Amino acid sequence: MRKSYFRPVKGAPPPLCLTISRRVRFEEVDSMNVVWHGRYASYFEDGRVALGNRYGISYSDFIRERIPVPIRQIQIDYYHPLMFEDDFEIKTILHWSDAARINFEYVISNAAGKLVCTGCTVQMMLDQDLNILLTLPPFFAAFLERWKRGELA
Amino acid sequence: MRKSYFRPVKGAPPPLCLTISRRVRFEEVDSMNVVWHGRYASYFEDGRVALGNRYGISYSDFIRERIPVPIRQIQIDYYHPLMFEDDFEIKTILHWSDAARINFEYVISNAAGKLVCTGCTVQMMLDQDLNILLTLPPFFAAFLERWKRGELA
Amino acid sequence: MRKSYFRPVKGAPPPLCLTISRRVRFEEVDSMNVVWHGRYASYFEDGRVALGNRYGISYSDFIRERIPVPIRQIQIDYYHPLMFEDDFEIKTILHWSDAARINFEYVISNAAGKLVCTGCTVQMMLDQDLNILLTLPPFFAAFLERWKRGELA
Amino acid sequence: MRKSYFRPVKGAPPPLCLTISRRVRFEEVDSMNVVWHGRYASYFEDGRVALGNRYGISYSDFIRERIPVPIRQIQIDYYHPLMFEDDFEIKTILHWSDAARINFEYVISNAAGKLVCTGCTVQMMLDQDLNILLTLPPFFAAFLERWKRGELA
Repeated sequence: MRKSYFRPVKGAPPPLCLTISRRVRFEEVDSMNVVWHGRYASYFEDGRVALGNRYGISYSDFIRERIPVPIRQIQIDYYHPLMFEDDFEIKTILHWSDAARINFEYVISNAAGKLVCTGCTVQMMLDQDLNILLTLPPFFAAFLERWKRGELA
Repeated sequence: MRKSYFRPVKGAPPPLCLTISRRVRFEEVDSMNVVWHGRYASYFEDGRVALGNRYGISYSDFIRERIPVPIRQIQIDYYHPLMFEDDFEIKTILHWSDAARINFEYVISNAAGKLVCTGCTVQMMLDQDLNILLTLPPFFAAFLERWKRGELA
Repeated sequence: MRKSYFRPVKGAPPPLCLTISRRVRFEEVDSMNVVWHGRYASYFEDGRVALGNRYGISYSDFIRERIPVPIRQIQIDYYHPLMFEDDFEIKTILHWSDAARINFEYVISNAAGKLVCTGCTVQMMLDQDLNILLTLPPFFAAFLERWKRGELA
Repeated sequence: MRKSYFRPVKGAPPPLCLTISRRVRFEEVDSMNVVWHGRYASYFEDGRVALGNRYGISYSDFIRERIPVPIRQIQIDYYHPLMFEDDFEIKTILHWSDAARINFEYVISNAAGKLVCTGCTVQMMLDQDLNILLTLPPFFAAFLERWKRGELA
């Protein structure tokens, strides 16, 4: 059974998911002929960016609002390697949080459906002094509202 | 207090440590003017490679013995950003394990001594069929012996 | 007028072209908010790989035949920057050569059709001793035949 | 004989040189067990940054003065591969220019003194509207003065 990175939040709506497809590029493969482990952070980012764009909570939205959302934590668990030109899918799962915090989970699988890796990132929304935001930015609060009302399914 | 990534092993010798210095390179910095979070896996690798070379358990030793030691897990906790041309230190800590497993912990701090990030990696030693090794390779068993006898302090 | 990287070869068939689309990823952008100049080698490779796959002269074909085709030269001329999430096109142009040599030209333009950069790479086909091949590998000779007969247009 | 990337300028002082040492890192090596060709742009940048810091014309100086100095051209000629943990030297050579332009040449050689690659970059100094500077920034003009007077040898 798959590892669970986040504790369930009471009364939270179901997670939002988005799956994108990619192919391994030559420069991503190391001398062991597999994707270098450090590259997966960039695959996770591909998934995170796509989901953010889809739901109106993109990098550009946060930059426009001047709200840094740095990554505070990343975890990656590797199960099966990817090789040059392998097609694979990145499933990105946004879990609900009541705080100024963004909890993403990731599941990467290859074209045969085999589990390649899982992982998570935790981001915090900060103010200009790099303290954690006490009030959510309106565009994000609105997004949470729609999510809670089930309008994003 | 610093996070503890590995449970203590009973009767284990104290961890082995090595600290190296680096400076942030231009291409490592993202458009937020800080080192991109995904780069830290490569800083950890710098530390891991240096410690392996120092104690005779380098990448080259494992390649010569044809023993893959893929990374199974990585965790990174980010506390403070690094910027272009910041000098920083990577402290790599090898924790004892009784299994065919290599447990590294990492602590990165900037020139002012401020904690930048911590993290860990877990590697497994595999045989040619990618199963976990049941018997340690002689060079690694010898290394463990010396470590246990306190000859590597 | 666009720079010409290769001298025309007498009696050569017209170049083969393939255009692919990409979007700038976050980690490709530097602290000046533009794609770091060194990244373009990887965009060129995306184009080169796609053209190779399309015409049966892929990296995998050369690896299977154990023929190294290292890059001997790269040139890049930069005209206009790319920024985060910019969509752009990579046009890859394979020029005819009578030698064991692969001459690629590249033209990158943004979504508005503005010229971003141009460049070229030169690769040599080598034997196992890393000397330049005197006889072309059959799969490549066959590819040249089809190209010359106009079957690849 | 080594390729010459820049035409000599009449009455110009001799070039400024700086050599730094590096070791190939694991992630820089591709599946052919050699440093991926696209990585050399980053080695050139290591050399360029070091020379800039040494002579007071660093990235930080240009950023402070808000003068973009984007790379307009890069050329790399590859002669011999580098492998994992190879030690190598990057010799960076700054050639004189009378224009708002920075002409760097690079020579990389391995620990045995064998020529690995050579190359060049051309940078232009721009104003805030991204037009080429008509007047050099004072700190750079002063640097050229000292260079011309032979004070930087």
